[in-house]
Amino acid sequence: MKQRIVTISREFGSGGRTVGRTLAKELGIPCYDDEILLKTAVESGLAEDFIREHGEYTASNSLLGTIFATRDYQGRSMQDVVWQAQKTVIEKIGHEESCVIVGRCADYILKDIADCLTVFIHASKEFRAHRIVEVYGENETNPMKRLSDKDKRRKNYYQFYTDLEWGQAQHYDICLDSGVFGIERCVEILKELYQK
Amino acid sequence: MKQRIVTISREFGSGGRTVGRTLAKELGIPCYDDEILLKTAVESGLAEDFIREHGEYTASNSLLGTIFATRDYQGRSMQDVVWQAQKTVIEKIGHEESCVIVGRCADYILKDIADCLTVFIHASKEFRAHRIVEVYGENETNPMKRLSDKDKRRKNYYQFYTDLEWGQAQHYDICLDSGVFGIERCVEILKELYQK
Repeated sequence: MKQRIVTISREFGSGGRTVGRTLAKELGIPCYDDEILLKTAVESGLAEDFIREHGEYTASNSLLGTIFATRDYQGRSMQDVVWQAQKTVIEKIGHEESCVIVGRCADYILKDIADCLTVFIHASKEFRAHRIVEVYGENETNPMKRLSDKDKRRKNYYQFYTDLEWGQAQHYDICLDSGVFGIERCVEILKELYQK
Repeated sequence: MKQRIVTISREFGSGGRTVGRTLAKELGIPCYDDEILLKTAVESGLAEDFIREHGEYTASNSLLGTIFATRDYQGRSMQDVVWQAQKTVIEKIGHEESCVIVGRCADYILKDIADCLTVFIHASKEFRAHRIVEVYGENETNPMKRLSDKDKRRKNYYQFYTDLEWGQAQHYDICLDSGVFGIERCVEILKELYQK
């Protein structure tokens, strides 16, 4: 059987990562999330911390940040270097095996080279704020601000590299509100779609 | 049992209306689409043609159209008059019975007053162009232009009255690509979600 990929884009705190991990486990296929970061480090020779620093989660949130970014000898920003290295890893995975890939614009990177089920998981700010305090501990003093900041970074990163609007329903095969359906039900829906 | 509503927003040509009709039939509940128009005519005293002319499908697509629109004695444009009359009908339905409502911003109108499953159905332009030629006949000479025009009108109409972005995943419980899954499968997915 030809490999089939599930790509999961998600709002911060929506549980999209958990949906991805659980789905992969139930389907008996690997899930790539931070594993992409490790693989990128191994294959590109870049340090793991460097990749983390210039990847999806920490991408510059401002125009000035982009203009004044440090550049390599080809004129690429550090973020561009990491993007290219991660893209190569994701393309390789897309050719090799059935799996779930969380984040990192994998839906866009793989759209023409693999059989993908592209998913977007989102939820209300109230649901996500409650969830990040629960998951990341009681220290979260301003979860709403953290949500806005993370979402803005992901949105900017996605738009910058894909020229598409993050969270626009038309770019995904299916979008689900994990706050409405619950994480387990989201996994069930996706499992059925993948298997049929 | 308290009434439960399914609202279906859809891109033109995606088959969202067919999804709504089939779903309602399988669930044994009514589907309101053009029926809203008839109900609005009966309850408001406005002529059916007038409602059709100033409703969702034919809403002005330009700023100038909005500025220079004919207005009633309260300063409302004809589009506003129809919007208000339709809104009253949709709110009444939302209080009365379980049903499927297609289009007309019902997701927004009912969000705080009914138990709603809010759905957005979309598909690629190629799928939709093929489908509208098939459904609306062979005379369609420029289906791509027709799609863009209809989508733009729906988008404008939705944004004008809701202040939300039409097709943004976050505004719906579930968004489905009918070109990827097929209309029957979309109905199945929604039926299961409604029943559980």
